[in-house]
Amino acid sequence: MTHETLAPEGETPLSPAAAYRAALLDAGLLIPTGVDGLYGRSETYEQVVTALEQSITRLSAADRPEQMRFPPLLSRQDFLASGYLKGFPHLAGTISCFCGNEADHRRMLACIGEGEDFSQFQQPADVVVTPAACYPIYPVIARRGPLQAGGLVVDVSSWCFRHEPSVDPCRMQMFRMRENVRIGTPDEVVAFRNRWLERGAAWLERLGLPFEAALANDPFFGRAGKLMADGQRDQELKFEMLVPVGSVEEPTACMSCNLHMTHFSEIWPLTTADGAMAHTGCVAFGIDRLTLALFRHHGFTPTSWPAAVRAALFG
Amino acid sequence: MTHETLAPEGETPLSPAAAYRAALLDAGLLIPTGVDGLYGRSETYEQVVTALEQSITRLSAADRPEQMRFPPLLSRQDFLASGYLKGFPHLAGTISCFCGNEADHRRMLACIGEGEDFSQFQQPADVVVTPAACYPIYPVIARRGPLQAGGLVVDVSSWCFRHEPSVDPCRMQMFRMRENVRIGTPDEVVAFRNRWLERGAAWLERLGLPFEAALANDPFFGRAGKLMADGQRDQELKFEMLVPVGSVEEPTACMSCNLHMTHFSEIWPLTTADGAMAHTGCVAFGIDRLTLALFRHHGFTPTSWPAAVRAALFG
Repeated sequence: MTHETLAPEGETPLSPAAAYRAALLDAGLLIPTGVDGLYGRSETYEQVVTALEQSITRLSAADRPEQMRFPPLLSRQDFLASGYLKGFPHLAGTISCFCGNEADHRRMLACIGEGEDFSQFQQPADVVVTPAACYPIYPVIARRGPLQAGGLVVDVSSWCFRHEPSVDPCRMQMFRMRENVRIGTPDEVVAFRNRWLERGAAWLERLGLPFEAALANDPFFGRAGKLMADGQRDQELKFEMLVPVGSVEEPTACMSCNLHMTHFSEIWPLTTADGAMAHTGCVAFGIDRLTLALFRHHGFTPTSWPAAVRAALFG
Repeated sequence: MTHETLAPEGETPLSPAAAYRAALLDAGLLIPTGVDGLYGRSETYEQVVTALEQSITRLSAADRPEQMRFPPLLSRQDFLASGYLKGFPHLAGTISCFCGNEADHRRMLACIGEGEDFSQFQQPADVVVTPAACYPIYPVIARRGPLQAGGLVVDVSSWCFRHEPSVDPCRMQMFRMRENVRIGTPDEVVAFRNRWLERGAAWLERLGLPFEAALANDPFFGRAGKLMADGQRDQELKFEMLVPVGSVEEPTACMSCNLHMTHFSEIWPLTTADGAMAHTGCVAFGIDRLTLALFRHHGFTPTSWPAAVRAALFG
């Protein structure tokens, strides 16, 4: 947990998180793109990502999840229906496209040549960037009709977008999130969430990552958002596993265990076998954050990591 | 190559490509999202994707490529510099975000509630959706300074966006493209491209996929684009491996072998060891198209595929 934070004389010292990013870039594990929060990854970095994904697959196998993989885009219609823009307008990204003719094209290129905003030549596409890995699954499951008895666990993993440019490498604009989503009765979902609190804690210990499980809330927008966050805490809907990565004082949420109550089944008709409104909940893994945590605590050379960590990770 | 194209009485028969899509959706290999060209993938589908990626890694190992992986977003500045909007304005997607205050937020939600376009409340983000897997690498390599003698091969793989909603499952809006990019002298790049024409053909034969290699051009926009396409064909810069997938009459480009000449080094200063302007070229694999081709020719159950195909694919 020691990375050089002293800056050359006359320069402002880097924050601990920025110093860690500089070390990752120097080592070539992350590749700069000129945009804060958008990085390429080296082969070594990706080997750890692949191992984490496989370790999570083994960890969740007992739940017999149904695996689905979606591209990092979501139907605009489902995105608007989800209410994401009510809670997190500042984090979302929508996609626009040019649909004009050749004359429009010439005018758009002239506008770009002048360095001006050319969005007047674009129209909203019917897709947006995925804000969280689980969003695509609810309409899919709802279309199937009522759940079978015992409900369902869905395993998803996706690139996700959050518009929050930052020098903290743990706060990327595009990052990978793995989730196992439980859909069923309230009891089934609470039991799933509580099981993952224990299972996740034991897994992080095997990975040699120090952590603290803490009551948390989502980063809702504005004053109305403050009320939503308070309500989420009062009902103890969200727990995060906080790991020191960029800084010890401000540890990073690398996993979370969540109850959504009927949030999603009020939007899409998710129904249990006996016709009641289904509850949902999930365990979410910040794959890039976990990767950065492993590099932070065990060094930049995975072949030199402790044998027990390698065994837990590489199976 | 036989999928039912008869429609219920009174309905228009599906095109061969649409009929293949219907079969994939019925089998659960693809999962509908309500948007043409945007699909979830099943576990079986993803197993083939993973095997293809690994097979390509083995196939290219002799070239000792440097592996880089980028998120499916590109810096807006690099995207504009690339000139992509000159050639392919109709295919590109840019990202917009809300950056307002709470009053703006209320107005935006009211606008959404009325079902109206809310783009007036959004601003262009500093990222766009990646149009082709190789775009992020050129500025990265250019920043390193001149190449070493012998140049470089870079291995990239990314989700890519093209705004072309279609019922043809081979024409997705978001799909995976793997590329090996050669950066070096003109001779080095031509040799690389020609080697991949042979290597790719032998690989497709081992995968049991019928194909034809054909001179091709990129889908440039408009009348000016027609000239660019003609020039590309005159110089024999692009060859595609065409495999019948959705239809026999209109086979699908599942791989391509390309010379870019100095297209990218005129934008980013890619320089050979002796100070000359580098040439670039690539082999590109349409990972989702190859997956759909394998399901088309060998059936929907990979465990039942011919032993030779399985050996080539699963190694």
